[in-house]
Amino acid sequence: MVTYAAPLDDIRYLLNEVFDYGKTVAGLPGYEEATPEILDAVLEEGARFCENELLPINLSGDAEGCHYENGVVRTPKGFKEAYQAFCENGWTSLACDPAYGGQGLPKTLQFVLEELICSTNLSFGMYPGLSHGAYNALELHGSDAQKSLYLPKLTDGSWSGTMCLTEPHCGTDLGLIKTKAEPDEDGSYRISGTKIFISAGEHDLTENIVHLVLAKLPDAPPGSRGISLFIVPKFLPDADGSVGPRNGVRCGSIEKKMGIKASSTCVMNFDDAQGWLIGEPHKGMRYMFTMMNVARLAVGIQGLGLAETAYQSAVAYAKDRRQGRALKGAAEPEAAADPIIVHPDVRKNLMRMRAIIEGGRALALWVGTAVDRAEKHPDPEARQAADDLVALMTPIVKAYLTDAGFELSNTGQQVFGGHGYIHEWGMEQLVRDARITQIYEGTNGIQALDLVGRKLGQGMGRLLRQFFHPVQAFIEANQTDPEMAEFVLPLAKSFAKLQQATAWIAQQGLADPEEAGAASSDYLKLFALTALAYLWTRMVVVSKPQINGGMKGAANGDTAFHEAKLATARFYMARVLPESSALFTAIMAGKKPLMALDAEAF
Amino acid sequence: MVTYAAPLDDIRYLLNEVFDYGKTVAGLPGYEEATPEILDAVLEEGARFCENELLPINLSGDAEGCHYENGVVRTPKGFKEAYQAFCENGWTSLACDPAYGGQGLPKTLQFVLEELICSTNLSFGMYPGLSHGAYNALELHGSDAQKSLYLPKLTDGSWSGTMCLTEPHCGTDLGLIKTKAEPDEDGSYRISGTKIFISAGEHDLTENIVHLVLAKLPDAPPGSRGISLFIVPKFLPDADGSVGPRNGVRCGSIEKKMGIKASSTCVMNFDDAQGWLIGEPHKGMRYMFTMMNVARLAVGIQGLGLAETAYQSAVAYAKDRRQGRALKGAAEPEAAADPIIVHPDVRKNLMRMRAIIEGGRALALWVGTAVDRAEKHPDPEARQAADDLVALMTPIVKAYLTDAGFELSNTGQQVFGGHGYIHEWGMEQLVRDARITQIYEGTNGIQALDLVGRKLGQGMGRLLRQFFHPVQAFIEANQTDPEMAEFVLPLAKSFAKLQQATAWIAQQGLADPEEAGAASSDYLKLFALTALAYLWTRMVVVSKPQINGGMKGAANGDTAFHEAKLATARFYMARVLPESSALFTAIMAGKKPLMALDAEAF
Repeated sequence: MVTYAAPLDDIRYLLNEVFDYGKTVAGLPGYEEATPEILDAVLEEGARFCENELLPINLSGDAEGCHYENGVVRTPKGFKEAYQAFCENGWTSLACDPAYGGQGLPKTLQFVLEELICSTNLSFGMYPGLSHGAYNALELHGSDAQKSLYLPKLTDGSWSGTMCLTEPHCGTDLGLIKTKAEPDEDGSYRISGTKIFISAGEHDLTENIVHLVLAKLPDAPPGSRGISLFIVPKFLPDADGSVGPRNGVRCGSIEKKMGIKASSTCVMNFDDAQGWLIGEPHKGMRYMFTMMNVARLAVGIQGLGLAETAYQSAVAYAKDRRQGRALKGAAEPEAAADPIIVHPDVRKNLMRMRAIIEGGRALALWVGTAVDRAEKHPDPEARQAADDLVALMTPIVKAYLTDAGFELSNTGQQVFGGHGYIHEWGMEQLVRDARITQIYEGTNGIQALDLVGRKLGQGMGRLLRQFFHPVQAFIEANQTDPEMAEFVLPLAKSFAKLQQATAWIAQQGLADPEEAGAASSDYLKLFALTALAYLWTRMVVVSKPQINGGMKGAANGDTAFHEAKLATARFYMARVLPESSALFTAIMAGKKPLMALDAEAF
Repeated sequence: MVTYAAPLDDIRYLLNEVFDYGKTVAGLPGYEEATPEILDAVLEEGARFCENELLPINLSGDAEGCHYENGVVRTPKGFKEAYQAFCENGWTSLACDPAYGGQGLPKTLQFVLEELICSTNLSFGMYPGLSHGAYNALELHGSDAQKSLYLPKLTDGSWSGTMCLTEPHCGTDLGLIKTKAEPDEDGSYRISGTKIFISAGEHDLTENIVHLVLAKLPDAPPGSRGISLFIVPKFLPDADGSVGPRNGVRCGSIEKKMGIKASSTCVMNFDDAQGWLIGEPHKGMRYMFTMMNVARLAVGIQGLGLAETAYQSAVAYAKDRRQGRALKGAAEPEAAADPIIVHPDVRKNLMRMRAIIEGGRALALWVGTAVDRAEKHPDPEARQAADDLVALMTPIVKAYLTDAGFELSNTGQQVFGGHGYIHEWGMEQLVRDARITQIYEGTNGIQALDLVGRKLGQGMGRLLRQFFHPVQAFIEANQTDPEMAEFVLPLAKSFAKLQQATAWIAQQGLADPEEAGAASSDYLKLFALTALAYLWTRMVVVSKPQINGGMKGAANGDTAFHEAKLATARFYMARVLPESSALFTAIMAGKKPLMALDAEAF
């Protein structure tokens, strides 16, 4: 069984001390009541729920999986009860609009909660996660009637939602979808087609399931400009929201897959199912994308959550497991062997996990708080600036944090040696669960293309400025302090490489988009490493003054916390950030080495 | 289902053209009959067997797994028949001594065969693989009576073998084992204790199982100097080899694990089991280690084999799957979309797989042929030199190729997008199976410690010279050719970094072994990347003259093969090797960033 306690100290530190939550989030109009005290209460309640209700059914849920029979899907033992409690405790309604029964709390809190959920039970988190995605799409693009019918049910969790995009022959390229929508006389549509990989497409947790379905109208222009978005409920509701007759949508089978086994991944067959158009015809892709940004941030946070559990478990094991002796001589000569945490290579693994997780959490919450500003800031320019930062950083959060989630789950597993490969220890489940996060909501390769192909050029580089300007200003403000040099110099070096690579891609990519494509995934990593260097240095600025003149174990209980921050920042600069130079060299080698071979030569 | 055809062209190219097999292996005394023609025949027969018999039961074996009931283990459907055919076709006896019924072929052929087996069915390969390990240990250290009783049965495959090392509280640190061996009056011993993670510990493939068991005699000195090695057969054999009564060893359970599910991983309970001492008392660890080197090379080759299947499958999928358009405009405008192999990021993934696999195969076969020279070369100095190279490179082959096997299986899976996560496509199985290779036969962290802690210092750096001298000479011989500069310069640069890091570790490690430990795993990777750069440049030297003046599709059918070698070498230098500079920087940062935090701070 894995070891996990919600990292509330680190979350509080980041929100309150680094990102000034009380001002930057709770200071926004509408969030006046979401004070740091409320934040604290939500954090503690959320931690308790996740640790006590979700974690205990995670390993058993993986072993049991979902079961399919005759169109019905049964979730593993305990999921129904946990979902019931989840709804009753108000976790589905946290960031929903009070107009529909929601608590109207900031998105920042939703992101924090999602980390905790994913640390303890990613499979479980899929069900409310998908509902929340459907909620967002409907809230933004649905009609008033649609909103008042569906949003209260999604808010209280009695109905769940899905996103039905992928078909057997297309996932990334949704322009190819074949699902059809024929207009009916009553203003609704008849949807027919097959969707695959539909998370939460069928299950036994809720009384109804609201499918949001991409389909083509008869007069649709070809490709992605001809796709419309429809609501297709499993049971047709009355106007008052009571559940009526079964609609023509059924689950044909569920997938046998590598991980997230307690999350049902369904083939959904739509056979003349009744559906209702969301927004205008042919704008489905646009609607999906507005929702997808939030979903992609949430997936990045999934990677972070899994890595945190892997880290805590690896630390506990490394302190407990005794093998061999410290290289400098027995650390605990009275015992038969030393705990493996004495070994530098084990230590390196733990420090790497810690440096990337804490830096990654800073990245996620930096962008997370910007989501709230983008929505609620009274100044339109500030809203736009925040929105630009979110748009720029979303592919980076998604791809980098999920790559990190997978890498670090594996690192944690490795610390366990052979026991890491055995189901009962829980580590191999983290690895299998983490693997999907690199693939869904747009593979990480697609995220990198989004970054170089869309985000870099958008508004003549307007988005980029939301990262480049503050980092530049931060470096200038701190570069004269000799005590900061060990942090600011490597940051500045990596930042210079990022600027140079950005200019190179912008220039080369104009003449030949394949050059941008060839650089894309290495560039995204270089960007992420630089962003983490920036955020680590910001943490140093916050933590350094709070250390009691280097006195270890001083009366101030926080000193150890802040000393650990500095030590971890130093590790990041010395042993993680150097990867940025290799990435830079690879980027600047251009597309030629990749594209030299004809496809037939493979 | 995965796509696989044994890469015989590449294997032939490496053995015949790069490593001059006809002279360096078939020219050894005793291997006169193992001509390149025999090699060819073995390769083709082996490929046929693996493709037709082992691959078809790989995915089903994973789904079904092994089943345990009342001490009996049932392997999945088809395994018994495949094992029968495997023995009848002589694959168990390939590299065994003719004195015991073996074919006496070179170890090189055994390594090549093992790649093919692991590409098609790693779980299956575990059974004969473990037997071969037991064969090697007995052949080197058993008495004549033991050899004539057990080796013919291991050679013809009617009996299988195991290595019983790990116990619940110890794996890496075998000095802690508790299993006891009490001398009996008849010269045998009574073995009692519990061993875990015993691959092939119990199964239904053979009529008997020969356990090689580490245990402590009553007078054993403490720690790893007090461990002895015993033969403990499942059924006690008569002197003529017919199977007699059941011995006191039973399988208590099998593990539920992440992968290699068709390989039984057993808890073995020894309860006054009759055993016979191998060699002298208290020398069991030494005996295990002589065998372990070969086993570690074989595990490295497992990683290679899995990566090859992932590569071929990803190539097939990337040519078949159509999503989106080439960034420069439609490549196949008449189709609805282009095959994804047009995308630079997909291409980068495929090229990376190819560059590391082909370079890794060169590494494995370079060391593999040295195993034969170390055993059979008539000149004792040449034997020693070859043995030194094998000893030096073994941890590198094991750790680097298994890390690569896992990384590249994941890369292949990623090319499949969502389909890669679904069982029926076979890609996620490759990932799960590959994961164990980084852990067993000594975790990759332990391999790195073996490299810096044992191999670097051995004989005052004598082992190192077997790598440093030929590479130095090769660079000098080729550095004046301007056409070779694009390969020799990056090689020389990485080699210089490796030399510098080696000197640094040797110096720092003397004063503080934790410095060597802190550098170990990054150093091993730097070493491996440099070794691959060396081998890629050697391949360029072989292939370059065979290209017809750059005429593509020229009459010479091999031109495309050699052109691809050069293109892949260029990719390696431009987009893989740059990682060595980041590793160098990380190594030179020393242990301080790792060890700054107290254990309690984690």
